[in-house]
Amino acid sequence: MTNKIITISREFGSGGRSIGRLVAEQLGIPFYDKELVDHIALESGFAPKYIEEHGEHAPSGSIFSYALAHQSVPGVMNGLSTADFLWSIQCSVILQLAEKGPCVIVGRNADYILKDHPHCIHAYIHADEDFRADRIVRLYGESESSPQARLQEKDKRRRINYHHYTGRNWGTAQNYDICLDSGKLGVETCADIIVSLAKK
Amino acid sequence: MTNKIITISREFGSGGRSIGRLVAEQLGIPFYDKELVDHIALESGFAPKYIEEHGEHAPSGSIFSYALAHQSVPGVMNGLSTADFLWSIQCSVILQLAEKGPCVIVGRNADYILKDHPHCIHAYIHADEDFRADRIVRLYGESESSPQARLQEKDKRRRINYHHYTGRNWGTAQNYDICLDSGKLGVETCADIIVSLAKK
Repeated sequence: MTNKIITISREFGSGGRSIGRLVAEQLGIPFYDKELVDHIALESGFAPKYIEEHGEHAPSGSIFSYALAHQSVPGVMNGLSTADFLWSIQCSVILQLAEKGPCVIVGRNADYILKDHPHCIHAYIHADEDFRADRIVRLYGESESSPQARLQEKDKRRRINYHHYTGRNWGTAQNYDICLDSGKLGVETCADIIVSLAKK
Repeated sequence: MTNKIITISREFGSGGRSIGRLVAEQLGIPFYDKELVDHIALESGFAPKYIEEHGEHAPSGSIFSYALAHQSVPGVMNGLSTADFLWSIQCSVILQLAEKGPCVIVGRNADYILKDHPHCIHAYIHADEDFRADRIVRLYGESESSPQARLQEKDKRRRINYHHYTGRNWGTAQNYDICLDSGKLGVETCADIIVSLAKK
């Protein structure tokens, strides 16, 4: 057992979600990934699909993406833009989940939102492009024609979102307790290391 | 036993050197830290003390540091500046040591020099300033008056040196197989994790 909250930040296609699921299974604690989206949907009134697509993407990375977000939903809530409103709900939901007890939370800048939480392990998972490209084609069914471009696009959006809301640079080792190369070390080994840390 | 070369890059005061020593002891393989300096001294003809002080510092971070380097040693070798000459010796010595067999190498941009070596684990050790300031005062006998300033100065020099010779940003998770926060996880735990990876 563990009394730890484990946050997993990850590059697209690195297997961070699979690692998170393995860690949660091995520790017997809740795993929040899609469930997190459902919680945010419930609190915000937005559709889960919209949150899934926009929750980790560039909030104001371009005028184009910002305009699109406003066309898709009713507009501005309590003086906040759609993106900022979603961010405030996301913070609130993640803080509530962490209060409930040990769990694994994947993505959604949870490392930053819970940076002052006393019982967290913040992990960052990355891998080289070849490993990730193979993975997204094989496991996510992404197009085989240009998986590299898809990786770069997704990572860029996450990077912009992270920097916008945290002021930090994504992938900087100092922001995490542990960073692991899943391509080099393997998904199972990464999970094992995080489990052993949580059990200490 | 292991057939691995382990490189340990570290923030000043993070305990990276202690972790490296523990890993080498537990695996029963050579540990190159001061010994590395002696090898570079032998190959270059420079005094170990000079190499220790300048080998990981800003090569051309300022005109001042560059001028100082040239006043301290005979000048330019084979058309190379003192710093570039030392770098070339450092690369050659590290590549030779890696050829000899399993070992732990601390610092000196060995992660970059051995980035294409097939049997390496590249680790980066960091910790927050409070942990490191306490450590350098307690263990290295650094002045208690402004350890933070000393940390920042040393890290800045290493960062400039690393970027100058590798083109990479220091402390970026993607450059390493594993990054660990020694302040949060503990020096012994960090060593245990690296040992278990090396044994796989």
